[in-house]
Amino acid sequence: MSIVVVGTVAFDTVETPFGRGENVLGGSATYFSTSASFFTDVSLVAVVGDDFPEEHVTFLHSRSIDTTGLQHVPGKTFHWSGRYGFDLNEAQTLDTQLNVLMDFQPNLPEAYRDAEYLFLANIDPDLQMNVLEQVRKPKLVACDTMNFWISSKPEALRKVLQKVDIVVINEGEARQFTGEANLVKAARQIIAHGCKRLVIKRGEYGVLMFTAETVFAAPAYPLEEVFDPTGAGDTFAGGFIGYLANSGDLSEEGLRQAIIYGSVMASFNVEDFSLSRMKRLEYSEIQTRFRSFKELTHFEDIPY
Amino acid sequence: MSIVVVGTVAFDTVETPFGRGENVLGGSATYFSTSASFFTDVSLVAVVGDDFPEEHVTFLHSRSIDTTGLQHVPGKTFHWSGRYGFDLNEAQTLDTQLNVLMDFQPNLPEAYRDAEYLFLANIDPDLQMNVLEQVRKPKLVACDTMNFWISSKPEALRKVLQKVDIVVINEGEARQFTGEANLVKAARQIIAHGCKRLVIKRGEYGVLMFTAETVFAAPAYPLEEVFDPTGAGDTFAGGFIGYLANSGDLSEEGLRQAIIYGSVMASFNVEDFSLSRMKRLEYSEIQTRFRSFKELTHFEDIPY
Repeated sequence: MSIVVVGTVAFDTVETPFGRGENVLGGSATYFSTSASFFTDVSLVAVVGDDFPEEHVTFLHSRSIDTTGLQHVPGKTFHWSGRYGFDLNEAQTLDTQLNVLMDFQPNLPEAYRDAEYLFLANIDPDLQMNVLEQVRKPKLVACDTMNFWISSKPEALRKVLQKVDIVVINEGEARQFTGEANLVKAARQIIAHGCKRLVIKRGEYGVLMFTAETVFAAPAYPLEEVFDPTGAGDTFAGGFIGYLANSGDLSEEGLRQAIIYGSVMASFNVEDFSLSRMKRLEYSEIQTRFRSFKELTHFEDIPY
Repeated sequence: MSIVVVGTVAFDTVETPFGRGENVLGGSATYFSTSASFFTDVSLVAVVGDDFPEEHVTFLHSRSIDTTGLQHVPGKTFHWSGRYGFDLNEAQTLDTQLNVLMDFQPNLPEAYRDAEYLFLANIDPDLQMNVLEQVRKPKLVACDTMNFWISSKPEALRKVLQKVDIVVINEGEARQFTGEANLVKAARQIIAHGCKRLVIKRGEYGVLMFTAETVFAAPAYPLEEVFDPTGAGDTFAGGFIGYLANSGDLSEEGLRQAIIYGSVMASFNVEDFSLSRMKRLEYSEIQTRFRSFKELTHFEDIPY
C-alpha cells in the first residue's frame, strides 16, 4: 500500500558538537518519506520555493517518492536553524523562516485522495484537518505535532487527534499537552480523548506505545557515534508507518515490529548529517539492525 | 548462596509532590538487603547510632536478614534529607548528617568472610576496598558509588572498580566518571578500565547492561503512580544480585533475567514511601510483574 505524507520540505542549518551543515536538505516530510521509501511507495505533499535545487527533487525520485504533490511556488523555501549541545537530546532553535510555508495550502492531487495510509507530519493542525477532509477512506491515519501548536492552537490540535488512529509525539509534548507529569497518566488522557494508539518518542531512551489495554517499550539503539539527531523523529515515523503500509498487519504484534523498524531507521539517520546516512543505506543493513534490536532486548521468560 | 552487603542504614526525611516522610527507615544497605531477601539470605554490614529503634531491626529480622554485622555505636544514626520535584528523576539533597557514619569501620564478622556474593553499596571507596580485602574468595563482587566519591576520591574509586566484577552506577555518574557525553563510549571506557560488566541505571528509562561484547536494554516498568523514588537504585541492585545469588547462573542469559528481577523490585519500591511497599510485597507479585516485563518488551523476530 502507498502512503501519502503531508509536512515540510526545508533547508536546515544545523550545528552539533561534531560539525555544522548549512542549508542542507531537511523537513518533516523529507525525512518521513525517505525513511518510508525503504518499505513502500510514498507520495509527498509539501511546498518549496524557487530556490529549491533540482538535485533534491532528483534525490526524492531516486527513492521512488512521488513528488506530484510537491508545490513549487515563487519565494524562498522554509528554513530552520538549530543547535545541539553535547547531550544531543533537544535542539535549541536559533531561527525559523517560514517563507513559502506561510501560505501553504495542501491541495492533494486527485490520485492521492484514495490513499490508504496517511501521515500528517508536524504542520499547522488546521492544515492537518484540511488534509484529513480531502482523503476519502484511509485505512490508517497517523499524525505528529510540536510544542508550538500545543500552546498556540490546542483546540484545533485536539480535533485532529480525535480523528486519527495513531498519534506520534515526543515525551515533553505529551506532558505539555495534558499538563500531567506522569507519562502513563498523560498517555491514558490522550487515549481517553479519542486516538486509539499513542506512540511516545523519548529520544535516546526509545519509544513507548500505548493503547487503552497495552503498553510496549522499545529502547533506542545504543550508538557510539551520534552526529546529528535532526529528523530522527520523522525518520522513526517513516519506518513505522512505512513498514505498516507494506505489511498491512495492524495487529498489536505487527505494530510492535513496525515500532522496531521505525527505531532501526532513526538509529541509522542520526549516524550522519542531514540525510547522508539514508542516501547510502541498504535494505540488508535494516534487517541486520532489526535482529540486533532483538538481541539487545531479549530475555528468557520464567516458567509458569 | 548468601550475600554480604556493606553500606548505610539511615534515617531519611523525604519530600515528594505526593507527601513527606520524616525520619523514615532508609539507607543503601537497608534497601538492598530488603530487596535481596526476597531471593536469598542476606547479611548486612553497616552502622547505626543509639537512636536506632528496635522496630527497624525487628523488620530486618522479619526478612531473615542477618544483622550480626550491624554495628550499634553511641551517637546519632546517619540522616539524609532530600526533595523530589514533579519529574521525580533526581533528588535535591537538602541536608546530610553523617553522624556515626563518620567513624565507620566495616569489620566483617568471621562468618561473613567466606561470602560468595558481595555488594559494596555506596560508601567511601576506601571502605569498599577495605571490605574487599576482608572477603576471602568471593564468586561475584558488585559495587555502586555516587557523584560525591567520583569527584572527591576518583583514584580510590578507580582501584575499587578494577577489583569488582560488576559496577552498577547511574547514567550521570557514568558520564561524570569518564567525562564522556556518549553513554556507549563511557561504558566502553569503564569496561576497558577493568570491570567485566557495567550496569547503567537510567531511572524511569530503565537500565543498560554492558560487557565488552554485549549490550542489554531493559525498560523501567511504566507506572501510573510513583510516590517516592528513594532507594530505587539499591532496591534494583538487591533484586539483581539477590536473584543471581539464588540462581547461581552467571551466564549472559542468567544476568539478563536478574536485571529484570532488579527492575521488578525497583518498580514496586517506588509505589510507596520508604520501605512501605516492600513490607507488604508478596513473591507471587514479583513473578507476575516479571511476566508483565516480558509482555511489555516482547516483539517477534523476523525470519532469516
